[in-house]
Amino acid sequence: MLRVAICGGSGYAGAELLRILAAHPHVNITVATSEKSAGKRVTDLFPHLYRYRDVIYEPLDREKIISRADLFFMALPHAASQVAVDFFAAQGKKVIDLSADYRLRDAATYEEWYKVPHMFPGTLKKAVYGLPELHRKKISRASLVANPGCYPTGAIIGLIPAIKKGLIKLDSIVIDSKSGTSGAGRQSEVSFSYCEINEGFRAYSIASHRHTPEIEQELSAAAGKSVMVNFTPHLLPVDRGILTTIYAKLAKGLEGKDVHGIYQAAYGKEPFTRVLDTGKFPNVKNVRGTNLCELGVAVNKRTATLIVVTAIDNLVKGASGQAVHNMNIMMGFDETEALNAIALFP
Amino acid sequence: MLRVAICGGSGYAGAELLRILAAHPHVNITVATSEKSAGKRVTDLFPHLYRYRDVIYEPLDREKIISRADLFFMALPHAASQVAVDFFAAQGKKVIDLSADYRLRDAATYEEWYKVPHMFPGTLKKAVYGLPELHRKKISRASLVANPGCYPTGAIIGLIPAIKKGLIKLDSIVIDSKSGTSGAGRQSEVSFSYCEINEGFRAYSIASHRHTPEIEQELSAAAGKSVMVNFTPHLLPVDRGILTTIYAKLAKGLEGKDVHGIYQAAYGKEPFTRVLDTGKFPNVKNVRGTNLCELGVAVNKRTATLIVVTAIDNLVKGASGQAVHNMNIMMGFDETEALNAIALFP
Amino acid sequence: MLRVAICGGSGYAGAELLRILAAHPHVNITVATSEKSAGKRVTDLFPHLYRYRDVIYEPLDREKIISRADLFFMALPHAASQVAVDFFAAQGKKVIDLSADYRLRDAATYEEWYKVPHMFPGTLKKAVYGLPELHRKKISRASLVANPGCYPTGAIIGLIPAIKKGLIKLDSIVIDSKSGTSGAGRQSEVSFSYCEINEGFRAYSIASHRHTPEIEQELSAAAGKSVMVNFTPHLLPVDRGILTTIYAKLAKGLEGKDVHGIYQAAYGKEPFTRVLDTGKFPNVKNVRGTNLCELGVAVNKRTATLIVVTAIDNLVKGASGQAVHNMNIMMGFDETEALNAIALFP
Amino acid sequence: MLRVAICGGSGYAGAELLRILAAHPHVNITVATSEKSAGKRVTDLFPHLYRYRDVIYEPLDREKIISRADLFFMALPHAASQVAVDFFAAQGKKVIDLSADYRLRDAATYEEWYKVPHMFPGTLKKAVYGLPELHRKKISRASLVANPGCYPTGAIIGLIPAIKKGLIKLDSIVIDSKSGTSGAGRQSEVSFSYCEINEGFRAYSIASHRHTPEIEQELSAAAGKSVMVNFTPHLLPVDRGILTTIYAKLAKGLEGKDVHGIYQAAYGKEPFTRVLDTGKFPNVKNVRGTNLCELGVAVNKRTATLIVVTAIDNLVKGASGQAVHNMNIMMGFDETEALNAIALFP
Repeated sequence: MLRVAICGGSGYAGAELLRILAAHPHVNITVATSEKSAGKRVTDLFPHLYRYRDVIYEPLDREKIISRADLFFMALPHAASQVAVDFFAAQGKKVIDLSADYRLRDAATYEEWYKVPHMFPGTLKKAVYGLPELHRKKISRASLVANPGCYPTGAIIGLIPAIKKGLIKLDSIVIDSKSGTSGAGRQSEVSFSYCEINEGFRAYSIASHRHTPEIEQELSAAAGKSVMVNFTPHLLPVDRGILTTIYAKLAKGLEGKDVHGIYQAAYGKEPFTRVLDTGKFPNVKNVRGTNLCELGVAVNKRTATLIVVTAIDNLVKGASGQAVHNMNIMMGFDETEALNAIALFP
Repeated sequence: MLRVAICGGSGYAGAELLRILAAHPHVNITVATSEKSAGKRVTDLFPHLYRYRDVIYEPLDREKIISRADLFFMALPHAASQVAVDFFAAQGKKVIDLSADYRLRDAATYEEWYKVPHMFPGTLKKAVYGLPELHRKKISRASLVANPGCYPTGAIIGLIPAIKKGLIKLDSIVIDSKSGTSGAGRQSEVSFSYCEINEGFRAYSIASHRHTPEIEQELSAAAGKSVMVNFTPHLLPVDRGILTTIYAKLAKGLEGKDVHGIYQAAYGKEPFTRVLDTGKFPNVKNVRGTNLCELGVAVNKRTATLIVVTAIDNLVKGASGQAVHNMNIMMGFDETEALNAIALFP
Repeated sequence: MLRVAICGGSGYAGAELLRILAAHPHVNITVATSEKSAGKRVTDLFPHLYRYRDVIYEPLDREKIISRADLFFMALPHAASQVAVDFFAAQGKKVIDLSADYRLRDAATYEEWYKVPHMFPGTLKKAVYGLPELHRKKISRASLVANPGCYPTGAIIGLIPAIKKGLIKLDSIVIDSKSGTSGAGRQSEVSFSYCEINEGFRAYSIASHRHTPEIEQELSAAAGKSVMVNFTPHLLPVDRGILTTIYAKLAKGLEGKDVHGIYQAAYGKEPFTRVLDTGKFPNVKNVRGTNLCELGVAVNKRTATLIVVTAIDNLVKGASGQAVHNMNIMMGFDETEALNAIALFP
Repeated sequence: MLRVAICGGSGYAGAELLRILAAHPHVNITVATSEKSAGKRVTDLFPHLYRYRDVIYEPLDREKIISRADLFFMALPHAASQVAVDFFAAQGKKVIDLSADYRLRDAATYEEWYKVPHMFPGTLKKAVYGLPELHRKKISRASLVANPGCYPTGAIIGLIPAIKKGLIKLDSIVIDSKSGTSGAGRQSEVSFSYCEINEGFRAYSIASHRHTPEIEQELSAAAGKSVMVNFTPHLLPVDRGILTTIYAKLAKGLEGKDVHGIYQAAYGKEPFTRVLDTGKFPNVKNVRGTNLCELGVAVNKRTATLIVVTAIDNLVKGASGQAVHNMNIMMGFDETEALNAIALFP
């Protein structure tokens, strides 16, 4: 049994790791940390995690917990993750970091967008960006995986085949994303209270969201040159789900079925990314609670534009499910282990 | 007192006309028609319209009702509206048509998108597109006003100042809209049942929605040349509201404050379109139940892109409120009469 | 023009007073206070209250504001209201207190349930419980009105006719209430965040809610003897609305139509309480945004039980609307002034 | 492998059986029937059931399908189920009927509430009421199990220990239930459309709901004499979940902890019914997607009343999950097989 620690276990991503891993036959959770909730039971915060009623949050005391786990899921806030990740990685532990701290390969870009310097550029170099659809092989050999952000997951999966095949004009990309409210975490701000979110809908962080450079990094790598995108997140009055609608001018004349074929070829063997039949488009409700990314493609012939729509559950494929997928790849487990749930519909 | 008929009064737009007009000091509702609900009381369908408990729906018998009203609001389904509108207009009555039948000036375009021929091209020529922000003067002299579609209202208002001032590249426009479910009308389809919509979110009619030519018609007129757009509607799990996020490449170097100034100049005197302060963006919840269009603008300097976000209540500014606004202009009433409600928040 | 101060204007009840009073022809709002938000504009907190964009919250400095208003709406937290109410009332101002501080005529009962002593028993004696359906005459002569709690409003209206006519066994009353989340106020607690409330439903404060003695006070007065009730509140995933389902054993054999007649006789002339036709029961959605209490009655003959269901909007009839109603009565205005809105449906 | 047929597989209960059984190691689904959707793929109706993309609905041709399955889940509408259940049962097949047709042991009571006669009183006699908490042994020997209704499940579990121990006055029982909208099935009625349900809440079928005699049958059996109850269902704007708040006068002086002990003793060993700690009460959100019934108890000493609150997922413990539980018991499988999911929260 693999001994697993969940550092930062009192947020939604941590709770979701506990939920998913409960079904994993090869994993034993030995540590769950939380600074704010240290001393409390998991079930004090999350009554639905009754199975973990004997697990008590403890503070993240690195020295004390390092010997009690083989693999560390890090679900700490951005910036807070840097030191702990470096510590565990330096001691030869497997680490999967759900924060943004090790996603951007360029420390200067990290500092520009996150407003704090990166203190461990050496460790940063060893981190692998954990999007299995792109980097499966590297992940399988990695010790440190930077788990992708929720928005980047849906955006990058939606664009990579088109970019790799040179289908689109790279300066024309628009990524319009809509996320369920759990993406903001377990919130105590008035602006995330029920009455402010319910029956509302708004854009935020226009032209300035921190997931922008992460999306651009992976698209640029695939394109072989610098790509900049328009990315606008919106806040949906649902618990879970990100729908991303992507637009890009076609670089050449293409029919919808051509593009569909290219996407099908790219993802046909993926266990969790599913290209829907021509004319079908995804709904976040159909992937709720699953590690799936569902994807539809179309061509607007009047405007010569490629349109791709992707749907994920932001807490699963957009966070904890993808983290478990990465663990499965790193450890040589069956990739779908613990990730076979069917969506809860309705 | 102006005698008013509401033809097609049993849908949400009809009910909303009844709600709004209850506060109008110069209007008397004398007829409410419904084929399906003929013989029923208004309150059988809409208990909240208790004030109209004595009003009984009757069939739309043109000959019978024409003498009982001076102005006809037509809230019939598309295609069904053509004949009745022509009939009332031909008899010299004022008509405000909430259907799409008289919005597209080109009968061929109408037939292409709506799949039925237009039988009254002569009457069509006399119709004025009822977006007060664009056509106030013509509306004031019109006998027949084609009330804009819900999506076009938010999209056109969001783009006109930029187009008129030549700020943007016309072949780069992306209009990503998200509408509350009442936009689909009073529905008996499984796909609009509570359990299918709630906690879901999806795009629909990708690259094929019928509001596309309507948007293009008004943008083209403003541009002085043909404009084609990418327009994608999505279905929001809220009752009311359309948020539209618009992207277009800038034609020249501009700062956010420049654009803000241009929009402020364009709409500063409008009673219902409000440009938010720089850095602020609208939320559909803040305009719920009102005739407002709230609008925020930004420039993404990295990608040289203009981003505009507009919010309306699809049943008010996107339908019945704008219809009453048009009536106020046509009749010389105070423009804001019956339209002064503050949004119901939360 | 009546000069009005709103003390505690930054919560939902305060914002709702501002919204409702905007339509009042005889009222001028001259003061809005908030300790936390002093110095901020009303629109910084509530963008939908654009009409008040020039109003700035100030701290509640009693000496400073007393001369600037004739009537004071007090929307402060419980206990915080005691001193300020006493101060304004002692100076001969009209006061409508939306807190619980002056609702319970017995200071000992107040202390038992609210865990703080009442410091102004003399002022308490002068307060009138502001449920117009029960105490219209006293309200018309009052200087100090204690505005009823949201739950008590729906519960008391639902029970008074049955109690006054001796229809029910007084020891058998069950009041099962379900409230929209705005009843908890403008919240920054995790437990009221969107993701915790949405798709959830739960009871709270079982057998211990502070509205219990308030309900019992009014029922006891009507019965002429002490009445104790089972009252259970629940939290609904909607913004607004309280539905209260009431059960009580019949004291004698009665048909549904008998009871319906008794309720109709009791409330037939009320401007805001409406007894629905036999067989009809209310829906909170039909009273949203209004000052209405809609009410349905039934008799379960198998169990000899009276069942009454009432629906209100907790922020309007359950708080600010009823406060304005009380003001209208106190000042001799038309009772329905500013309170004529039709429900926003859907 | 047990060969299983799902008759009436195109409703939510049928879809939920497919979802749950996908995780069952000993079951093979060989038939899925639907009259309306015959010829369609399961995924045409339910894209989330991608795992069943090769399964095509067929009409319920009894002769044709009987040999293809060993156990039949019947998820047909009431009355429609009678014949088919009798047919399969007569041929020695195991049958679990999710309709109401075989729940009421007394055919006359069935006819009184369902307005159709029962044509198979002989088969009716053999049916076992499938509430494992009450009838585990009989279920284990049964060939025909009548799966309980959703409301009765939560109500009966909440009352049985109190009745068996004689804690309450049997003529004082009030059962106030609130159900998520999926309880109404896959709906095409306007009254279940999104805009009519969302932000609404109402009672329905007051003093007349068909689940009343089912609740009374089981309570009467436990009491050893006839019990009649007040049962009021309400419609919640959530997808899933039933919260039931139960009131009954205590027959003797009891503390909350006494009652808690009695409930804990009754259910301590149950795999799916969980008595929460004293002072804790359930939330439907914490059992969503699970086969759990969570239960809280309290005593209101002021009114000498027992209050019990239960929460279930109406589609799982209230329908398909309980059906699978019954199957597990009938077949000697581990009772929790395929039913171990943790609630999807948030």
